Amino acid sequence: MMPISSDQLLSALNWRYATKKFDPAKKIPAATWAALEQSLILAPSSFGLEPWKFVIVTDPAVKQKLSAASWNQTQPADCSHLVVFAFKKDLGPEAADQLIARTVAARGGTAAALDGYKGMILQSLAGAKAGGYLDTWQSRQVYIALGQFMTAAALLGVDTCPMEGIAPAQYDELLGLAGTPYTTLCACAAGHRAADDKYAAATKVRLPAAEVIKRV
Amino acid sequence: MMPISSDQLLSALNWRYATKKFDPAKKIPAATWAALEQSLILAPSSFGLEPWKFVIVTDPAVKQKLSAASWNQTQPADCSHLVVFAFKKDLGPEAADQLIARTVAARGGTAAALDGYKGMILQSLAGAKAGGYLDTWQSRQVYIALGQFMTAAALLGVDTCPMEGIAPAQYDELLGLAGTPYTTLCACAAGHRAADDKYAAATKVRLPAAEVIKRV
Repeated sequence: MMPISSDQLLSALNWRYATKKFDPAKKIPAATWAALEQSLILAPSSFGLEPWKFVIVTDPAVKQKLSAASWNQTQPADCSHLVVFAFKKDLGPEAADQLIARTVAARGGTAAALDGYKGMILQSLAGAKAGGYLDTWQSRQVYIALGQFMTAAALLGVDTCPMEGIAPAQYDELLGLAGTPYTTLCACAAGHRAADDKYAAATKVRLPAAEVIKRV
Repeated sequence: MMPISSDQLLSALNWRYATKKFDPAKKIPAATWAALEQSLILAPSSFGLEPWKFVIVTDPAVKQKLSAASWNQTQPADCSHLVVFAFKKDLGPEAADQLIARTVAARGGTAAALDGYKGMILQSLAGAKAGGYLDTWQSRQVYIALGQFMTAAALLGVDTCPMEGIAPAQYDELLGLAGTPYTTLCACAAGHRAADDKYAAATKVRLPAAEVIKRV
């Protein structure tokens, strides 16, 4: 692994902003997009349960409808690729069995050797369900993938705009998620900023470091 | 901005894994750590509200106690820097005023010109509080920062381990967050893998792309 420099990282993070206006003519090249899809697939999640579905929308008619289902914000229609982040509701014990099965498939060994690990997962899932925070817990994992995706995009020179101001139920209908275990949480438009998006040049607004960083 | 290549990105994401055993002798160089702190500060959040506090723990005695408050997992004690991710509970309308004030301070103009934007934030906060999902919403933002931090670390050649298996109330006590508006959500150990961490070489386990990616 060849690390990048701190300067490369920071120049990308400072270049990134929540793009308000995308250039609809500029599409993300296929090889770049393939890498960004990998950044979604490779995102870490609690226990590795991957309680998510990433819907990649490029169909112009659907993108237009998703803009309408987003308070008429233009990013879904105008971006190159819209990623809709969905999570699996009411994650059940079968998720633990499936994780153990794919671990054995990838790494060899036996499922029995992973019984202790499986027990921990089952206990966590059951505790979260009994405590009423199962969906909260699993939905948070999706935001790890969102964070990884936006950081990866910035480093590849791709603009993004995270969007929570959307109508999840309408998204679910339009994307065929309604009636499945998955439901829309948020979206992220990806593509290239329009030359006249005035927010591109706006000074970044952040709390002073001393207010967000505490040292112990 | 000079983008990195897709190969650089993917080599870092494939190199990353949830480090089980850190080498306690290997510390993150100061310049690298400064960049990683910036990755926390520059993380995006809903409306830019930054509803978070990042506690950076390097004190050996506290790190030891945090390991004890983490089911005796060794990562908090053995890592170079432990980041504890906390969020602000019950975020009130003053958060909107403060955001508008710092926007004006950074970009100029008047607070009055941002009244429409402020109204949207206040409406969202009030709606979330009335709907009982205010803390769920704000706590998810913290996971964007967690995702950005882990991705940034991997690109700089720094190992991480995200940790939810911790006792938040004990963390709050040990870190001086108890009695403040902030509460611990999760942690992320950062440093360098021990030479004998057998998980470093384990094949990555992931669902087939077709199960997590849906194309529309």
